[in-house]
Amino acid sequence: MARKASDNNGGKRQTTIREVAERAGVSVATVSRILSGTYPAAPATRSKVMRAVEELDYVANHHARALQGTTRKSIAIIVNSVISPHYAHVAQGVQTQAAEDGRLCQIGTSGGDAERELAMVQFMREQHPEAVILVGNVNADDEYKARMSRYAHALASVGSRLVLCGRPPLGPDAPAVVVEYDNTGGAFAATSHLLSNGHKRILFLGRRPGYTTPDARIAGYRNALAAHGVPHDPSLEVDGTFERYEGYRMMRSRLAAGPPDFTAAFAANDQIAAGARQALVEHGLSIPGDVSLIGFDDLPPAADIDLTTVYQPHEELGRTSVRLALEHARNGGPPPHTTLGAHLVIRGSVAPLVK
Amino acid sequence: MARKASDNNGGKRQTTIREVAERAGVSVATVSRILSGTYPAAPATRSKVMRAVEELDYVANHHARALQGTTRKSIAIIVNSVISPHYAHVAQGVQTQAAEDGRLCQIGTSGGDAERELAMVQFMREQHPEAVILVGNVNADDEYKARMSRYAHALASVGSRLVLCGRPPLGPDAPAVVVEYDNTGGAFAATSHLLSNGHKRILFLGRRPGYTTPDARIAGYRNALAAHGVPHDPSLEVDGTFERYEGYRMMRSRLAAGPPDFTAAFAANDQIAAGARQALVEHGLSIPGDVSLIGFDDLPPAADIDLTTVYQPHEELGRTSVRLALEHARNGGPPPHTTLGAHLVIRGSVAPLVK
Repeated sequence: MARKASDNNGGKRQTTIREVAERAGVSVATVSRILSGTYPAAPATRSKVMRAVEELDYVANHHARALQGTTRKSIAIIVNSVISPHYAHVAQGVQTQAAEDGRLCQIGTSGGDAERELAMVQFMREQHPEAVILVGNVNADDEYKARMSRYAHALASVGSRLVLCGRPPLGPDAPAVVVEYDNTGGAFAATSHLLSNGHKRILFLGRRPGYTTPDARIAGYRNALAAHGVPHDPSLEVDGTFERYEGYRMMRSRLAAGPPDFTAAFAANDQIAAGARQALVEHGLSIPGDVSLIGFDDLPPAADIDLTTVYQPHEELGRTSVRLALEHARNGGPPPHTTLGAHLVIRGSVAPLVK
Repeated sequence: MARKASDNNGGKRQTTIREVAERAGVSVATVSRILSGTYPAAPATRSKVMRAVEELDYVANHHARALQGTTRKSIAIIVNSVISPHYAHVAQGVQTQAAEDGRLCQIGTSGGDAERELAMVQFMREQHPEAVILVGNVNADDEYKARMSRYAHALASVGSRLVLCGRPPLGPDAPAVVVEYDNTGGAFAATSHLLSNGHKRILFLGRRPGYTTPDARIAGYRNALAAHGVPHDPSLEVDGTFERYEGYRMMRSRLAAGPPDFTAAFAANDQIAAGARQALVEHGLSIPGDVSLIGFDDLPPAADIDLTTVYQPHEELGRTSVRLALEHARNGGPPPHTTLGAHLVIRGSVAPLVK
């Protein structure tokens, strides 16, 4: 009942590319072209071939090995975690663009752990992806830079390439495509919006010295204070990571320490903002009546909690990473480097300060 | 500056396993054991080897090919999309359990498309995963069952296995591990909660005949109505998919059609509930004052919008899938089948009906 073709050949022998071609009524070259992902092919032809492949339970890798080097084209992406909406949306953008370009996409996670990241890069490299995209926040120390540089050279030496997405460039010696977004500009806009509404005592929630993303955002916060001539008070900067429960913890312990010495808070991402909001509400404080709140990302749950925040183009980051990587694969030359913009999204969580 | 080892050997020659062993000060067998993922190894040894591997830019797959068959152990998971919190949390559970068991995890997405799913299964099979986990809602027609049965046999024939996670079993002829959760029981509890609060006109948001997850949830809704002796009115069942914008669309068009002919709504997931909530609020209706609302999943943004919902153990689904797959890999026998429970989480979105 289960496998027609396999039952016919005893469930062991591998189907050949010739059998697939015969069943689909096309040439062996056409099957090869379609399976190796070198498009374009007419959708009807493609669908005939894929059906024949499926019916015959043809394993693409046997084909690939037989034809040496014509493995199925793919893109690999490694994120810290898929449950972060930011990483998930970037991965979705990579997936979407890869599919449009006839590539498969494999996603790996590192848990923010360097050893697991290395293991994933090596593991994924076995599939000969055209690019390995590394996404997101890191502790950009010397060890990190040396590691990325090794990845970049190792991938380049096998005809692939490293893409750093939402991570700073490595310098001229490391051949990595770089797609950044404007963390500092976005944070400057968010903080300026609070300052323009009269707030001067603005908490920053989510400081983490040494890490690229919070460092870039806190720089925007400090720049905005300086630009508006408001003194910088380091005691308003609260350390924490980018999770919702961390936002809750930071705000809760701040409120437990005494009456609020701030009138607004800039959360380094929307998850932190959501947690901080819960702590404020539980403390009997209203938003924006008592405290103005602003986030960063414009991802769920920003709309649901009516949060003013900074939009950044998550999926576009992923799509651009794929586009630039494939462009570089075609054209060679120095790896491209681009920065995508961010902008403010006004909702209902900020109010003018009434003195 | 970049690659020490590669520079030494001209950037071309592959590092050997012997060089890794020498650098780490361990035996070749130890390196092999650690790289192939056949644990246990002392963390200090493992870390020495991994550092040597990294320093020498050793490519695991060359090692694997040289040693034939001792590829790095891995688990593959294919979800419709990573931006759905449900799928992301299941994938996170798979990832976590795989890491605890010394396996790498690769994630693929299908976009709910059968052809892409097939391509992903074939692609991932090249890495010889111990299991391929397929997650989530599908149109369980005959074509689907035949396809899954082919996957199950094809994977079994190469010593791997198919795991259906949150999908119904295939029947006795198809060797698939099955991990389900109690959609019907959860929906019964949610609907009963509304009925116990006096509601009789309860919208169901997210009907999609033929699809396993909404079908199982609407069955729980109908069972609860029957159990409480409340007549079933098909006009209260609204068709739509599981996205937030769909929830918004469904509720908005319902409200546009005339005064509400319902006092409560059961959304087939939290995303739908969040969208429906926005439409209600925009229409000037309060929750739960005017309309009671209940969701399904207990994922973001449920807590942020104070939504009463049904908790299901998303990460545990993923972890259990890995555990049962590895257990089956060790012990053989008929593939295991289990169902995880769901329960109600009471928040503030349901109120008693005041007549």
